[in-house]
Amino acid sequence: MSKYCFGVDIGGTTVKMGFFSAEGEVLEKWEIPTRTENGGENILPDVAKAVLSKMEEKGIQKEEVAGIGVGAPGPIDADGVVHVAVNLGWGTFSIVETLQKLTDLPVKAGNDANVAALGEMWKGGGQGYSNLVAVTLGTGVGGGIIVNGKMLTGAVGAGGEIGHIHVQDDEPEACGCGNHGCLEQYASATGITRLANRKLAAVDTDSVLRKGAVNAKTVFDAVKAGDPLAMEIAEEFGACLGKALAGIAGVVNPEIFVIGGGVSKAGEVVLDYIKKYYIPNVFHANRDVVFALATLGNDAGIFGAAKLVLE
Amino acid sequence: MSKYCFGVDIGGTTVKMGFFSAEGEVLEKWEIPTRTENGGENILPDVAKAVLSKMEEKGIQKEEVAGIGVGAPGPIDADGVVHVAVNLGWGTFSIVETLQKLTDLPVKAGNDANVAALGEMWKGGGQGYSNLVAVTLGTGVGGGIIVNGKMLTGAVGAGGEIGHIHVQDDEPEACGCGNHGCLEQYASATGITRLANRKLAAVDTDSVLRKGAVNAKTVFDAVKAGDPLAMEIAEEFGACLGKALAGIAGVVNPEIFVIGGGVSKAGEVVLDYIKKYYIPNVFHANRDVVFALATLGNDAGIFGAAKLVLE
Repeated sequence: MSKYCFGVDIGGTTVKMGFFSAEGEVLEKWEIPTRTENGGENILPDVAKAVLSKMEEKGIQKEEVAGIGVGAPGPIDADGVVHVAVNLGWGTFSIVETLQKLTDLPVKAGNDANVAALGEMWKGGGQGYSNLVAVTLGTGVGGGIIVNGKMLTGAVGAGGEIGHIHVQDDEPEACGCGNHGCLEQYASATGITRLANRKLAAVDTDSVLRKGAVNAKTVFDAVKAGDPLAMEIAEEFGACLGKALAGIAGVVNPEIFVIGGGVSKAGEVVLDYIKKYYIPNVFHANRDVVFALATLGNDAGIFGAAKLVLE
Repeated sequence: MSKYCFGVDIGGTTVKMGFFSAEGEVLEKWEIPTRTENGGENILPDVAKAVLSKMEEKGIQKEEVAGIGVGAPGPIDADGVVHVAVNLGWGTFSIVETLQKLTDLPVKAGNDANVAALGEMWKGGGQGYSNLVAVTLGTGVGGGIIVNGKMLTGAVGAGGEIGHIHVQDDEPEACGCGNHGCLEQYASATGITRLANRKLAAVDTDSVLRKGAVNAKTVFDAVKAGDPLAMEIAEEFGACLGKALAGIAGVVNPEIFVIGGGVSKAGEVVLDYIKKYYIPNVFHANRDVVFALATLGNDAGIFGAAKLVLE
């Protein structure tokens, strides 16, 4: 019986490392730099070194370790093959085979957003549920879908890539992906700032937003203070995201939406604006789906990665 | 080793019965009436009787039968429990347990659209794929989603219920479900007729559609004949469905869409109008998803039901 495992969350600048008990208790966590130069060739060797050093430090044998779970930003298929991860410099290769060879330990890998969703299901805002959609409202909009307790990976690892669902026909600006009117353009932190600046330029209504920094935090702070202009911006955010989540529910029929990322730090008010547009636009079978805030923050990735090798 | 199985597709007026070899060859198919009176209490006993009579007629023992697969119109969860099937008069009970008791054979059950999707994957337009979205454009719009070869059932059996995804904000008429702007209002046979009648009333452009019956078939016949008004109606159909399927792809990342139902009988032209709006609105990872026509027609249900007990 294995006593330990490792959960690894590879980001564009740092790799988050978690050392877990088999019961899912995080015993230690630390970070190492992500060396993306030369096609990111050092990233997995650095991870392997960190894992093996930790085992040596703790006097742990290989038989005591269930394995290493890995989340990384990019399309990663059900076999653990990554298909081009731009932020890491990676092309197409098997994360699982590479890291297994380097460590002689079992390895599983998945897309970071899907892995984070698994983490929130296991130890976060989605505990007790096995059909879950996790939505991360950060710089972009990420998504992870869990069906019967398993990640929905999709044909090429792009399952749950909900940030580029088309939600607006008349958007003049292009999204980073090249399309126009993607969910991410309205519901991410960047998107909310964009909506706010657009609104501030279009009307001359007074607003506290004219007196300082304009970003997702200041917009929702202003909403809480009753600022009418900020409330209009929040309505636009809620309409785009609420209707998009209603459509997602129509596809996967989840039990719960877990909303995380920087924007979600504003709290329940974010859920209120989403639900205002979700409920009237969703199929009745999905009307009672639960909305909850994510609770693991930046640790969702290492928890989900650990769960990958413990299940 | 089982030699045979039964695939049963329960509809509102008839039950389609299929007797299959374990290799998936349909040996015989027939229909019995669906007796929906008294809360549909006779439906499963009638199915049981039909199965047992066929076994007696053929001199087949129970050990030779892998089981009975059942598709029925309504939310049916992963355990084979139906949660109210209005068209059949059914409340909430276990189809699996009930039919097992009546026949002493293994039983599996699923929502008819999900089961039909499994049929199209196994023996129809989706052969060779294991991540598939089947879309049925009939009186309504039905959907069935297959992930890694298995039906996506959802929390309460409403997985793949894509007909009520919200696609239009300014729809004055209510959908049958009570909401406004559901996909079904634009992409079903009924929806296309509605769009056509609305367009014919709104403008006075000449059209062959003014000279006879107006329905999905006559609209697409007119499109093929180059009728400009019919082509405008087809654009509206394609815009709603193409963008909705782009969103669905953003959720599940399928390999293929299989388009069936009465509307699909118009052929490739239907796919052309869908793809025209799908491609510019979909995330790049899903741009090369295959579009195919369903090939099993009304038999998709019995094939999928048989596959349920053979897998």
